[in-house]
Formats: sequence, C-alpha cells, structure tokens
Amino acid sequence: MSAERILLSAPGWDSELWIGELEKHAPGRDIVLETDGATDPSIRFAVVWKQPEGLLSSLPNLKAIFSLGAGVDHIFKDTTLPDVPIVRIVSDDLTARMSEYVVWQVLDHHRNGPRYRRQQQNHSWGETRQQASADDVTVGIMGLGELGRDSAAKLNVLGFKVTGWSRRQQDVDGVTCFAGPEGFGDFLASADIFVVLLPLTDETRGILGLETFRRMTRRGPLGAPVLINAGRGGLQVEADIVAALDEGLLSAASLDVFEAEPLGKDSPLWEHPKVTVTPHAAASSNAARLAGPIVEQMKAYDRGEPLANLVDKSAGY
Amino acid sequence: MSAERILLSAPGWDSELWIGELEKHAPGRDIVLETDGATDPSIRFAVVWKQPEGLLSSLPNLKAIFSLGAGVDHIFKDTTLPDVPIVRIVSDDLTARMSEYVVWQVLDHHRNGPRYRRQQQNHSWGETRQQASADDVTVGIMGLGELGRDSAAKLNVLGFKVTGWSRRQQDVDGVTCFAGPEGFGDFLASADIFVVLLPLTDETRGILGLETFRRMTRRGPLGAPVLINAGRGGLQVEADIVAALDEGLLSAASLDVFEAEPLGKDSPLWEHPKVTVTPHAAASSNAARLAGPIVEQMKAYDRGEPLANLVDKSAGY
Repeated sequence: MSAERILLSAPGWDSELWIGELEKHAPGRDIVLETDGATDPSIRFAVVWKQPEGLLSSLPNLKAIFSLGAGVDHIFKDTTLPDVPIVRIVSDDLTARMSEYVVWQVLDHHRNGPRYRRQQQNHSWGETRQQASADDVTVGIMGLGELGRDSAAKLNVLGFKVTGWSRRQQDVDGVTCFAGPEGFGDFLASADIFVVLLPLTDETRGILGLETFRRMTRRGPLGAPVLINAGRGGLQVEADIVAALDEGLLSAASLDVFEAEPLGKDSPLWEHPKVTVTPHAAASSNAARLAGPIVEQMKAYDRGEPLANLVDKSAGY
Repeated sequence: MSAERILLSAPGWDSELWIGELEKHAPGRDIVLETDGATDPSIRFAVVWKQPEGLLSSLPNLKAIFSLGAGVDHIFKDTTLPDVPIVRIVSDDLTARMSEYVVWQVLDHHRNGPRYRRQQQNHSWGETRQQASADDVTVGIMGLGELGRDSAAKLNVLGFKVTGWSRRQQDVDGVTCFAGPEGFGDFLASADIFVVLLPLTDETRGILGLETFRRMTRRGPLGAPVLINAGRGGLQVEADIVAALDEGLLSAASLDVFEAEPLGKDSPLWEHPKVTVTPHAAASSNAARLAGPIVEQMKAYDRGEPLANLVDKSAGY
C-alpha cells in the first residue's frame, strides 16, 4: 500500500489522540488535520465530525467519508457535500456505551433517583411504598437501529417491557413494534418512559414537542411519562419540554443533547428540578476502540470490497 | 383445608396490605397480627420481619417461620427462637429488584453521575475525556447467593467484568470466583467497584472496615474503588467508610443499609459529597408478588413436601 494521506477533521476533538490511534492501524498512511494539506490530491478518505463547510468538496479524489459518531446530520449541513459514500460508525463499543446510558437513565427514573437525592439533601429517610418492579414499566424506544435494538435487549434482561417505533416496520425480539405516522399515536400511548435514539432528518426535526407529549397518555407508576433524549438536540423543542414538565404532561426528562451545544449558561434546563442534564456524553467515540474499524473499512475498499454501514442519503441517515 | 390462623408480625409495615394479599392466596385461613391471638394453638406458620422477642416461642404448635425479606439476621436476634425451620424468601421479583438497584448504582458511578449532577448545579458543560467502557471495569460481588448471581449475570450483559467472593467456593458463569479467608485478598485486589450482598453473620459483621478497604488496591478508571452496600448495615463500620473516603482509599460509596435504621439525622453520611444514601430501598418486599410464593410453601408443607430455601442455622443464613 503506497503512502497516502487521510484527512481528519473534527474541530474541538483531541486530534493528537485520534491521529495516534489511526496511525497505529494505518501504517504507511499519513493522517493530516483539516488545516494542513486539505486539497492534497492523494486524499481519498476523510474522517470527520462537524467538518467545516466546503472542506470535503475541496478534495478532488475523495472516495468516502467516515463519520466519527453514530449521527451523520452534521455532515449533511455542508451544502457543498461531494457525492461520495458516507459511512456511519457502527461499533460494538459505541453501541454498548449508548446502552449503558439508556439503562442508567431508565433505572434512575424507575428507582426514584431524583427523589432520593432530594431526601438525602434534607437528611430525610423516606421509603418508597410499594416500589414498582421493572416488569410493571414499559419503555418506548424511538428509533430501532443498532442502538435502539441493543438498548431494548438490555432493558428486556432487566425485566422492562419494551415497545419501539421506527420509520419502517421492524420485527425485534421482545419489542412490540410500531411504525410510521400511522403507528405513532399507538406507540405514544404505549409507554411510561420514552428513550429517543432517532436520527435527525427533515422528518424528525422538532418531533419532541408539545403535540407529541400530549399524545403520551399513560399514567404509570411514575405518573406522567419520562422523556430521555440521547439522539440529537434538533429532535427536541426545549421550550416545549419545559412547558410539558410544568403542565405535568411529562414527569421528568433526561437530556444528553440540546438544540445548541454546549447548552447555554442561561438555559432554564440547568435548574429545572425535573431535568437531568448530561453534556452530550451518552456515547462518546473512543479513539482506541474506533480507529481500527474505520481503517479496516478503508482497507476493504482498497481490496474492492463494498463499504458497510452506508448512509442512505435520501433518508438522511 | 380446615380454617387455621397464620401469624403476621412485621412492625412498621403496612399490615393491612399484607393481610389482604396473604388472604387472597390462603382462603380458609385467617391472618392475625402479632397483637391478636399470638398464642393461638392453631397457629403453625409465622410470617415475620423483625418480630418482637419471645413472640415465636409463645406459639406451641409453630411448624415454620417465613422471613419477609431476603435477610434472616433479624429473626436470629430473638434469643428464645424456637427450633423450627426458617424459610428465606427467594422470589424472582425480589431478586430482580435487587439487580435493578445494583445495576443502577454501578452505572451511576461508572458513568460519572455524581460529577454530572455537580456540573448541572453549576451550569457547567464538562465532557468526560475518554470515558471508560463497561468492559474496562471489574465489579466485585461479595456474596454469591441468588442475589449476587443474578446481579453478576446482568452486569455481564452490560459488558462489565465480574469477580465474586463467597464463603464456599462457587462456580458461576462469567464470574471469576474467590472463596473464604484465603481468597479474600486476591478478591479485594480484583475489582474497581464492590457490590456487597452478604448475609449478616458472626463472620461478616463489620467486614466493611478500614482493614478491608486498605486491601482494595486497584486504581482503575474511577480512581480508588467504589463501595456499594445493599446487604446489611451491620456489615459496615460507618466511621471507617468516612475515613476511607477522606483518605482516598475509596472514591465513593452508595449505601442502602446502615448500622442503625433509619439513619440518624446527624450522621455525617448524609452530607458527605462522596456518599449516596438510599433508605433501605434496594429490594423492597412487594406484598402482591410475595404472598403467593409464601402461601405455596405452606400448602406444600401440608402435602408433606419439603420446604424450599431453608436457612442453615449453623451458618446463620
């Protein structure tokens, strides 16, 4: 394999770390940062997270774009995007991390974490009368891709009932599946805790708003439903989430993603007593775990094999 | 089956609820409270939680004692305990609840829950650099009975490595097992997060003290090990836990049980920044779920079948 350069563009990330890990797996290839040699004609592969507008179209021989995270909406923001395949990261490591976050947050609400923390602050010993068991609770997963299916399986193991909703009808073991606009209402009426793992597309933008929350009609052991968004900030209307919490349409929300990130210092979400904020940390891309699979795909491409996990550009994910 | 009375003695519990659930499963038998007819010679079965001293020995025809929780140390406190079989509750429901708590607390530490909550209070957006994955972390379970084995299996599913320690050598799928005093040191050096599900016996009382914490030598992704005690309060020396946290021998502790319960208003544990307090809520006994299995055992006894889940009185659990 002749020496060749791979573009890395991930503003704000630890580039040294990623270059080091990519180099371990790609001997004979240089890794360059976006600011250095971006128009080098030898560059065929770009590894990106929120790359600058126009960067990718400046590469005359680009063959494929690799997204450093599960989402790809950040790539489509570039209005000059060249027409080459886009590869989404699917890694057991990233999937497992997301499921850790989902199970953690589902359990934190199911087991009254916020209430016990308030009690602790008040030195108050208050037991829960007849705590619900996991199998009294239904978790509704919005988005049944790799991430949603893995979360569903792990929630099942803990005893939760699981329903799911996706664009196209799916068949997932242990999950009651709903699909499309026609199945959305029944899905929203099916669960006590909603976990959002949808991609951000024209169809899903702003889907987490009052109109949706009003259709979440179950009143289970926790009262009104709980919202957990670990998908994309653009899915949610934050003013509507606050309104829904204040009106009692939702009993609590765990948000890992936001309309604008980092979340502004003056956002009402920080201090809302029913909101748990985490800093887009649900499933962080780990250089040591992801560099290998990315380079493997480049090598497969060079052997003439098809790229896996390609983004469907017409669907936007 | 002739009418017969069952004794219920669970001071502080919702007796009405338990009587109602027991009656559903035991038609033709009355359920009496401890204060009413305790010496009735027709009473052959007693269902208890922290029964008053001397109550059980006042029943001339007592055939078996049923503990309303997984622990039985509360029964042995009675110095006049009659020599009849003691049945420990083993129910899928109770086991599942305990595993919910264990997975919840393990994830809360692994995923930096306390830190993100502090950040939220400060409106501070701080990501975790290179968050460890579950398979970078080893959870050590002290006590490999029904509860410990189920927790281990569920932690395995989430990706955690699991070690375990028990009085006698066990062989548990997915768990590196240590046993007895001779295996205790290696066990203590094996894990990043310790989950305590031991019974309280003469051998285990005070086992969670400085001498033990000093042998927890691993320094993993979270720094010093984390202690999670969901077993019995008598296992722990609370002054030693505070000292170990302050000295850095432990990085955090989640305590569901305490030397004295309810935890005293002036306990330093409430305000310790590294301590999570829950009010003995890890696995609460649910009347609707447990009454059936208890009455089933009584019926089995009447058919001449052996009682299951008998307590080993010489071992004390």
